[in-house]
Amino acid sequence: MSRRAEQVDDLVARARDGESRAVARLVSMVEDGSPQLRQVMAALTPHAGHAHVVGVTGSPGVGKSTTTSALVTELRKAGKRVGVLAVDPSSPFSGGALLGDRIRMQDHATDPGVFIRSMASRGHLGGLSWTTPQALRVLDAAGCDVVVVETVGVGQSEVEIAGTADTTVVLMAPGLGDGIQAAKAGILEIGDVYAVNKADRDGAEQVRRELRSAIALADRPEGAWKPPIVLTVAQEGRGVDELVSELDRHRTWLEEHGELVRRRTCRAREEIEAIAVAALRERWEGGIDVHDGLDALAEAVVAGVKDPYAAADELVASATD
Amino acid sequence: MSRRAEQVDDLVARARDGESRAVARLVSMVEDGSPQLRQVMAALTPHAGHAHVVGVTGSPGVGKSTTTSALVTELRKAGKRVGVLAVDPSSPFSGGALLGDRIRMQDHATDPGVFIRSMASRGHLGGLSWTTPQALRVLDAAGCDVVVVETVGVGQSEVEIAGTADTTVVLMAPGLGDGIQAAKAGILEIGDVYAVNKADRDGAEQVRRELRSAIALADRPEGAWKPPIVLTVAQEGRGVDELVSELDRHRTWLEEHGELVRRRTCRAREEIEAIAVAALRERWEGGIDVHDGLDALAEAVVAGVKDPYAAADELVASATD
Repeated sequence: MSRRAEQVDDLVARARDGESRAVARLVSMVEDGSPQLRQVMAALTPHAGHAHVVGVTGSPGVGKSTTTSALVTELRKAGKRVGVLAVDPSSPFSGGALLGDRIRMQDHATDPGVFIRSMASRGHLGGLSWTTPQALRVLDAAGCDVVVVETVGVGQSEVEIAGTADTTVVLMAPGLGDGIQAAKAGILEIGDVYAVNKADRDGAEQVRRELRSAIALADRPEGAWKPPIVLTVAQEGRGVDELVSELDRHRTWLEEHGELVRRRTCRAREEIEAIAVAALRERWEGGIDVHDGLDALAEAVVAGVKDPYAAADELVASATD
Repeated sequence: MSRRAEQVDDLVARARDGESRAVARLVSMVEDGSPQLRQVMAALTPHAGHAHVVGVTGSPGVGKSTTTSALVTELRKAGKRVGVLAVDPSSPFSGGALLGDRIRMQDHATDPGVFIRSMASRGHLGGLSWTTPQALRVLDAAGCDVVVVETVGVGQSEVEIAGTADTTVVLMAPGLGDGIQAAKAGILEIGDVYAVNKADRDGAEQVRRELRSAIALADRPEGAWKPPIVLTVAQEGRGVDELVSELDRHRTWLEEHGELVRRRTCRAREEIEAIAVAALRERWEGGIDVHDGLDALAEAVVAGVKDPYAAADELVASATD
């Protein structure tokens, strides 16, 4: 076994023992697309599947990181090991944008039962469909009971992140015009649990009422999970115990209805496809297995002598020889 | 020939005659991922390649749509046919977010020499790397001399859009803290032409100075294009004639240095790859050609008996049988 392979095995063993520097190193390898990821994932996969993955999403200003921090506090009270993954799909840069979150997370920074990592997409398209499940696998195999995935940023990414969680918490707050935004962003289709945060402010009750009607109106098959609504004041930790109970109740429901495996299978499909596509792209761009060469195909399209679909057919055919 | 195929041929013929309803219909087909796109693109490809594709990007508030509108006015004065494609990569919804732009574009709405279309990514990942070049091909084949691609939204998408243009204009403005943002967003690597808009405001000269030093400091190979900086007040049309001259000068430079074909080849590569990947995904997700089935592979990963890389290998191998 090479020195490098040994180092990876050692890192994996230390991460499984819950050593936080080893965990951090492995998440960085995921983020950087390290060539040793194949070995890392092969070593971790048999040890994953324990953690409850909770996605936290919502519009800016709704209190995502405050709620995440309050969730961590509550889960730690119950003796749970907790991972936090702050994901910024809109930024190719980790760091800057997440500074605020890190500061809010400071309370937990020295707690050995908490792993906190922020992660950016580093500009590779479709990168998150790949890196998020892999980073989750690291935290999961490191013994976390719950991993909270917090989406930083806005827009469709929220919906994408929802696909990666076992349980998605959608946060709302009074005074943000969330009623309209909710409908617009399709956010009513992704929440398993809703929390109306900043519930001590005017209008919280109205947000709850609107949400409740919207949930009641939604088409839902018989026996489907009916998303509960929790009122929270995350800043003071109020309502967070109830939020945790609802998360537990949802996880139990998922297990009892075969949904947990179904959701995780979806996540794994995305990950496998993303890895496969990346492998094919690498072959195509490296000119391997392509008779005519991707560049030659592209030049033919630019010259107007071949249409892009015909070129794509040739590319696919070259991969299926 | 089927009725449907005839209709497409008719639509393509009318679009090539510059009939704006036919152009709009074809762009909608691109946006919707119509099954007839293959036929549309095959018919259009031989007639594309004339239009100069100009990307306009910059932070929110910098005046992108005002500048686009002023560019259209200036280009129309010179008798050019102009297409405008307003692309919103961050939103799966067309319409709403672009309303403001449409209003500003109202001046040109009745001009038969101008085609204006907004386009959203409709939530499909990697969708823009595919739909943008195809919509460009429609406007190009419809006889546009210049097509302006305006990015709505922020973040890494700006950098992606830059890859699709022949010439990328990066807009800046005083008072937006653009100095730091420019460095952060890697925007200094993508501009072929810089415009400091709102140049009648305090601080414009300083933005220009900072930009100029940054450009001077950048590593640039011998004989490379040196991005000029233009001061504009797009609202009043000031400086826009100079901006148009710089765009023309850049296009000439691109042609003389073989760069035009190179950039367009990059764009075609992205498009071909995106079509090929979509075709493979469809096969995988439909269970065609996959021995073990993508679902079975994903279930094995969730069960911890197969790692995602091994599963991806099987998927790729199934495509290469």
